[in-house]
Amino acid sequence: MTVVLHAEPALEVAGVFFAALSGGLSAVRKHLDVFGVLVLAGTTGLGGGMLRDVLIGATPPVGITDPVLVATALLSGVAIWFFHPGIARMRRGVVVLDAGALGLFVIVGTTKGLQYDAGMLASVIVGTLTGIGGGVLRDVLTGEVPLVLQDRQLYAVPALLGAGATVLLWHEGWLAAWSATLVALGVIAFRLLSLWRGWVLPDA
Amino acid sequence: MTVVLHAEPALEVAGVFFAALSGGLSAVRKHLDVFGVLVLAGTTGLGGGMLRDVLIGATPPVGITDPVLVATALLSGVAIWFFHPGIARMRRGVVVLDAGALGLFVIVGTTKGLQYDAGMLASVIVGTLTGIGGGVLRDVLTGEVPLVLQDRQLYAVPALLGAGATVLLWHEGWLAAWSATLVALGVIAFRLLSLWRGWVLPDA
Amino acid sequence: MTVVLHAEPALEVAGVFFAALSGGLSAVRKHLDVFGVLVLAGTTGLGGGMLRDVLIGATPPVGITDPVLVATALLSGVAIWFFHPGIARMRRGVVVLDAGALGLFVIVGTTKGLQYDAGMLASVIVGTLTGIGGGVLRDVLTGEVPLVLQDRQLYAVPALLGAGATVLLWHEGWLAAWSATLVALGVIAFRLLSLWRGWVLPDA
Repeated sequence: MTVVLHAEPALEVAGVFFAALSGGLSAVRKHLDVFGVLVLAGTTGLGGGMLRDVLIGATPPVGITDPVLVATALLSGVAIWFFHPGIARMRRGVVVLDAGALGLFVIVGTTKGLQYDAGMLASVIVGTLTGIGGGVLRDVLTGEVPLVLQDRQLYAVPALLGAGATVLLWHEGWLAAWSATLVALGVIAFRLLSLWRGWVLPDA
Repeated sequence: MTVVLHAEPALEVAGVFFAALSGGLSAVRKHLDVFGVLVLAGTTGLGGGMLRDVLIGATPPVGITDPVLVATALLSGVAIWFFHPGIARMRRGVVVLDAGALGLFVIVGTTKGLQYDAGMLASVIVGTLTGIGGGVLRDVLTGEVPLVLQDRQLYAVPALLGAGATVLLWHEGWLAAWSATLVALGVIAFRLLSLWRGWVLPDA
Repeated sequence: MTVVLHAEPALEVAGVFFAALSGGLSAVRKHLDVFGVLVLAGTTGLGGGMLRDVLIGATPPVGITDPVLVATALLSGVAIWFFHPGIARMRRGVVVLDAGALGLFVIVGTTKGLQYDAGMLASVIVGTLTGIGGGVLRDVLTGEVPLVLQDRQLYAVPALLGAGATVLLWHEGWLAAWSATLVALGVIAFRLLSLWRGWVLPDA
């Protein structure tokens, strides 16, 4: 089955920008130099998609070929470099915007897996990885255990459910712009609701 | 030369299960959350093969496409989640079973490299990496220097010798189920003997 | 446009050897075992090119298929194992030789990106990554935040400029052995000049 589904490019650009912010902030907190801030922003904004593309064989990954996406991630790093005290104070805003990036990345990533015939299981995995992979690379590069594995928040879980829902819709032939939009909104709503209500996972 | 050689699927599943245990245990020790425990088990059980598949261009890797292998690794994580105090007490048993996984992974990994025409040298390297790569990813994700690089144990050395032996057998036209089984048993025996006799590598 | 450009193999071998030294020294400082020293030397000498090859789809990467390159990186590790006190005392010499490796890797890496039709932007990125990627892997494997992101030195910046210059030369049809040599010398000169004059990047 052919999947023709493109996230609005403007939305994807926004997703990269907001995801990259957390990388830049992390770099500033670690006192990296200006090159480090830009690399961390770029890796966090684009890294999930790069892991996905390498795993499904879509090389070179869009994270190094698409000038708009690369420029967006770097611009996010520049914004952090100049305005990080202000942006860090808007932490709640960053978290909300990052939830938007998560919802979008999961749909884009899962759909790309399906388009490359990676199969249903692999598409769920790379869809989730598109959402969480940038943050994992950010944490590994700054010497931290990835937050997504330890902070008990419901971040990967909505991503996984959204990726699973996308694959099911595709399997039933119902995957379209409107249904994918609903899934993305569901991921975002679940993520924000869990933050608001303080839902957490058990830890070991 | 065509290589037709499949490890008994039941053995490969067992290998993934036992390799994944050490990832789950490491996650529990680091107090990761339940998602982190499952990811660490999955990465440790499947990560060596995923690195191999990405390096030889066999994408998407079996570690994200094969439902039985993925389910096995996750099941190992679930077992750790519920029974980790008991499993941690059986440390000696886990080490022995992990030696079995090592022997199996090296043969499977080296053979896959040969099947994908990676060449003899690359097949030795990816065969060894199939055996040790999951543990390396486990340690990087939990913020540790990889044990295999520092604990002086003879873990990578039997893997390397086993991978080399597999490539030599293939080169001579002697690679078959029975000879591969002998190599796997040799890797396991060497690993266990080194543990029993306390053989170690020099460190710097 | 066809790019026919081979760095003198003897130069590439020298580059791998000198890049690998810093990996071996880092392993010794962390008291890794002899296998760890060899792996760190190998990863540091060959890892930038391996990341490049995986990103542009040139699998299996030369870093695991080319016997001369692999042997060179391992030989560098052996040299560190036996002579590390002496080599560590020649720190200034190692830094200068490492600048040579940087200049060479950037040209080789950028050109390979162009040869694999990765596009201009991706070629700049993988060219830079060929130069700095080995050190990033070295630091991640030894539990450090990558030096290149935090030490304020002008290391990635000359690499980036050299990669950009190579792509521009190619775009204008001027990329040839003599022009590539000039770019490599420019990268090396800029790197050494920055060290000599103490030029640094701002940090956060």
